[in-house]
Amino acid sequence: MKLFFSSTSPYVRKVMACAHELGVADRITLLPSNAHPVTRDAGIIAHNPLGKVPTLITDDGLVLYDSRVICEWLDATHNGHLFPRQGAARWQALVLQSLADGILDAALLARYEEAARPEALRWADWQQGQLDKVHTSLLALERAPQPLHERADIGTLALACALGYLDLRFDAWGWRGRFPHVAAWATGFMQRPSLQAKWALPG
Amino acid sequence: MKLFFSSTSPYVRKVMACAHELGVADRITLLPSNAHPVTRDAGIIAHNPLGKVPTLITDDGLVLYDSRVICEWLDATHNGHLFPRQGAARWQALVLQSLADGILDAALLARYEEAARPEALRWADWQQGQLDKVHTSLLALERAPQPLHERADIGTLALACALGYLDLRFDAWGWRGRFPHVAAWATGFMQRPSLQAKWALPG
Repeated sequence: MKLFFSSTSPYVRKVMACAHELGVADRITLLPSNAHPVTRDAGIIAHNPLGKVPTLITDDGLVLYDSRVICEWLDATHNGHLFPRQGAARWQALVLQSLADGILDAALLARYEEAARPEALRWADWQQGQLDKVHTSLLALERAPQPLHERADIGTLALACALGYLDLRFDAWGWRGRFPHVAAWATGFMQRPSLQAKWALPG
Repeated sequence: MKLFFSSTSPYVRKVMACAHELGVADRITLLPSNAHPVTRDAGIIAHNPLGKVPTLITDDGLVLYDSRVICEWLDATHNGHLFPRQGAARWQALVLQSLADGILDAALLARYEEAARPEALRWADWQQGQLDKVHTSLLALERAPQPLHERADIGTLALACALGYLDLRFDAWGWRGRFPHVAAWATGFMQRPSLQAKWALPG
């Protein structure tokens, strides 16, 4: 398998964490990418016309994206249990993944606003609106922490990757101080080898 | 069932189109919403901390989001065939949904840039980068149109909703003239009653 890779993409990390949990991370060849919302990557576009990472090419030549589809495919084809097959457990895990991906989408837009957009064109209300999505999401988990269990599934892995991205890009925002129950869960859950591993391009 | 609703949200439309295909659209009570990326809706946030539509509340009180999760739940609990259960058909449908959602995400960001952001803060390169994602995606479908089949599944329904959003908000961009094979498919597929139906809040 081949994966268009970026070392700082939280969605790539979600895919690699799932692959590690399934014991197949070392079967994935990482491909370089320069995905960016403004300057696009023709090498990715040739396979995934959205030009985004992660994009997976299977050994059979199937091209899969986005991270949700790749993770479910990895799980289904390697006899995993990251996606509960049916019933309440499935919907709980998928909703937690949606919450985590929603946190990430908001955090990425907030990041682009301050790191990609020219300073004179930044809109504070937009940045604030995106970070408020992160805030209300973490507040909901802090007040009703039953989704924060120790079992690795697509929900908890996605959430850990979202929180790891906040550590990476929004450390000054201080989410761990504001949401101590969520932070305590994250500190423990992030000890999993799948979340401790670092991936890099060959060479 | 209750659904936080917006008449112009393409993701709400995707959910309602799936519900219509499954014969359960009339069992969904539509709830008003004012979801917006900057001015947030506390009524939605009380159920979905991301504050986004669509958000579904089932008769058992389960809260489901985002559109992918809602559509799959509707299909699974009403014995549908919109999500192929396994094998190549499943991944093809899910990847087409990802492509459609990626087109929509880009189109929505392009729309916010011109409709929500103050004029002095607009960044032409960002708008262009988002519309280029739409362009390369439709170009890929135009050149390799095998995903454009007549069977209603989550992939084709999502794509029809994405293209319908381009008709609604980017008519002047002229996608139908640039991508005539995609447009011909869309014109035919959009005749389905699930895509002809209009939904509105009660009262």
